[in-house]
Amino acid sequence: MKAQSQIVVKKFGGTSVGSIERIEAVAERIHEDLLSGQKPIVVASAMSGETNRLVGLAHEMNPRYRGPAYDMLLASGEQVSIALLAMALEKRGVAAKPLLAHQLGIKTDAIFSKARIQSINADRLLDVVGAGVVPIVAGFQGEVNGQITTLGRGGSDTTAVALAAAIGSDACEIFTDVPAICTADPRLVKNVKEIKTLEFEEMMEMASLGSKVLHFRCVELAAKFGVKIHLRSTFEKREGTWVVPEGEGMENPVVSAVTHDASTAVIKIFPVPHEQGYLSKLFIALAEKNIVVDIITQSQNEEGQRLAFSISEEDVPNAEDIVRTLFGEDIKVSVIKDMAKISTVGVGMKNHPGVAARFFKVLSDLDVPIHLVTTSEIKISAVIDRKNLEKSANGLHMEFTLDLG
Amino acid sequence: MKAQSQIVVKKFGGTSVGSIERIEAVAERIHEDLLSGQKPIVVASAMSGETNRLVGLAHEMNPRYRGPAYDMLLASGEQVSIALLAMALEKRGVAAKPLLAHQLGIKTDAIFSKARIQSINADRLLDVVGAGVVPIVAGFQGEVNGQITTLGRGGSDTTAVALAAAIGSDACEIFTDVPAICTADPRLVKNVKEIKTLEFEEMMEMASLGSKVLHFRCVELAAKFGVKIHLRSTFEKREGTWVVPEGEGMENPVVSAVTHDASTAVIKIFPVPHEQGYLSKLFIALAEKNIVVDIITQSQNEEGQRLAFSISEEDVPNAEDIVRTLFGEDIKVSVIKDMAKISTVGVGMKNHPGVAARFFKVLSDLDVPIHLVTTSEIKISAVIDRKNLEKSANGLHMEFTLDLG
Repeated sequence: MKAQSQIVVKKFGGTSVGSIERIEAVAERIHEDLLSGQKPIVVASAMSGETNRLVGLAHEMNPRYRGPAYDMLLASGEQVSIALLAMALEKRGVAAKPLLAHQLGIKTDAIFSKARIQSINADRLLDVVGAGVVPIVAGFQGEVNGQITTLGRGGSDTTAVALAAAIGSDACEIFTDVPAICTADPRLVKNVKEIKTLEFEEMMEMASLGSKVLHFRCVELAAKFGVKIHLRSTFEKREGTWVVPEGEGMENPVVSAVTHDASTAVIKIFPVPHEQGYLSKLFIALAEKNIVVDIITQSQNEEGQRLAFSISEEDVPNAEDIVRTLFGEDIKVSVIKDMAKISTVGVGMKNHPGVAARFFKVLSDLDVPIHLVTTSEIKISAVIDRKNLEKSANGLHMEFTLDLG
Repeated sequence: MKAQSQIVVKKFGGTSVGSIERIEAVAERIHEDLLSGQKPIVVASAMSGETNRLVGLAHEMNPRYRGPAYDMLLASGEQVSIALLAMALEKRGVAAKPLLAHQLGIKTDAIFSKARIQSINADRLLDVVGAGVVPIVAGFQGEVNGQITTLGRGGSDTTAVALAAAIGSDACEIFTDVPAICTADPRLVKNVKEIKTLEFEEMMEMASLGSKVLHFRCVELAAKFGVKIHLRSTFEKREGTWVVPEGEGMENPVVSAVTHDASTAVIKIFPVPHEQGYLSKLFIALAEKNIVVDIITQSQNEEGQRLAFSISEEDVPNAEDIVRTLFGEDIKVSVIKDMAKISTVGVGMKNHPGVAARFFKVLSDLDVPIHLVTTSEIKISAVIDRKNLEKSANGLHMEFTLDLG
């Protein structure tokens, strides 16, 4: 899928640049690409552990602060890794230039710590490449009104896709510590297989549903600009998973992957108050605390209306506060922790009715109760007890013959 | 020496911002200054240990590399500390803005890792102050052609003095982990006293002669722009040492301080080659390796010319290589390590002849042989064996009654 003498954006994640030795290995690989005729544009994350260290310092100083200083603090991590990578290339006789967001005009909106890229000065980047120098770009960061912004989780992937889009490239490579995206998490499921191609839509669902390999916003941006993502291993040469536009994949299986999120909690409210607009009041209050509400169900029986929704388990203390403050003592609020969400994803589901039936039969045969459920054209998700996660994941993986490759 | 409601540049060193707790204490102090009517402009160094950690990474990657990537790497340290300090102030309800060199237009020359400041956009800085916000400026860094530069050792002090000069302020405060500059190093000499005022010229001599409290280039810049430096403790409220223009000091003692440098080596060459220009050839070769040559003496007797010069002990391996490569085997090169330089400094020496005589008599009475000696209008320096350093320093300190305050 690649031509010679072509500009390729290559992003290396935190583990790939996690030590001097690994940065040397990345430099070696870039050097080989150069010798084979490619013109790489490199994007790097912070050395693994560094962003967590900086977040820890910020948290120690002021856990509630979000704003320009927080973003400036976090952005220092990528500054270190790109400088070291440039030095590693120079050592090999390769001219390289470390570039921060403001040097490339990577402009974002002003939503600090979750900024979105709005424009990139592609000419500056292409000038560097044109001068025979390898640009080493700090991922994860942008600039607004002369201040540093950061892009949130998976931000360096987003930077790589945005750079590829800005220079009109139709693909970018994302190097990471796994060789490909798999049909399920190999730590949980037996006989997982590597996936050769996924469509953007599937990857976005998987990212939303708990797959941590690529983040939603990066894939969303790739889909918007038609930039194919080649996710592959830093430590091996073979190809990994291509994430491509609709219809460009291989023959689609009914289900492409089983995805899970092991840290889910459910909040149930009964009876729901009669007051108008209580739902919007509740969800605005949760959103203000940055709590993402996932599946929501409302049901009615003779005793009244019943509401249940799932959230990430780490948000339970804040969410419980909000719910109990908002509603009085007459309303029963129950919080159920130790839950998990299990999903099957696949664009093939569009053309194959009966997937939901097979999904529920697997869980029923395994005696797994379902607490909440939601479906879309290309996915089915169920919230179950965490203790049932492993057998459910393996059961679904076998049912849809993902273990047979 | 300070008026109310005045803009004051305050610089905090690495120890002062060395942990979250210390950054909190600095924020507390700035808050108090604000409440007392001052308008502080803050300059911060990297957290203590951080610059060494970054230098270590660079050294591990490529010990010989110096250039833009090295400066970008090192500059990340100040980015972390100013962000944290801004967060600490925000926590106290104080509006603060962390500012990197490029955001303030701190332009330097292109000598990476030893850059000199050429201009500062004072208006941008004053706009921030005018808006009621405390600017927290990254020390040690500048910008040239859109690239980050760093200013070398003591660079944050230089930033502070340069900012004070740019806004037309006649003084700046440098907060550090010692309460004042002393008449000698208290780890070596008994009964040292704190010095109330020093003239720029004296401080420059002391910095050149081994005093590590303020660096030469910072004092040189302060002298050039008439910016008084108030060196004081971060941890105490009382005044420390003022470094002031000529004639603005107190009644000057004959000798203001005894200064030493304990890591000196001497290289002796005999006989000196007859070839024209050998001296310039030698010293150019040393300069190219960044080796600073300190005292140089040349003497002639019937057997030929003899050359001796002192250097920092850490430069011995490189210097020895250069000397032995440059001159053949017929020339005897001896390297004497474990030496020290002991000096007395004082503008009062200008008007008091006989200081040199007293200096040499002290060393002679203590049976301390002198290897090299140099004098100026306001200092006398001698290179002696390191084992004699402590008794010589104490002897000179007593001779010039510095112990009596």
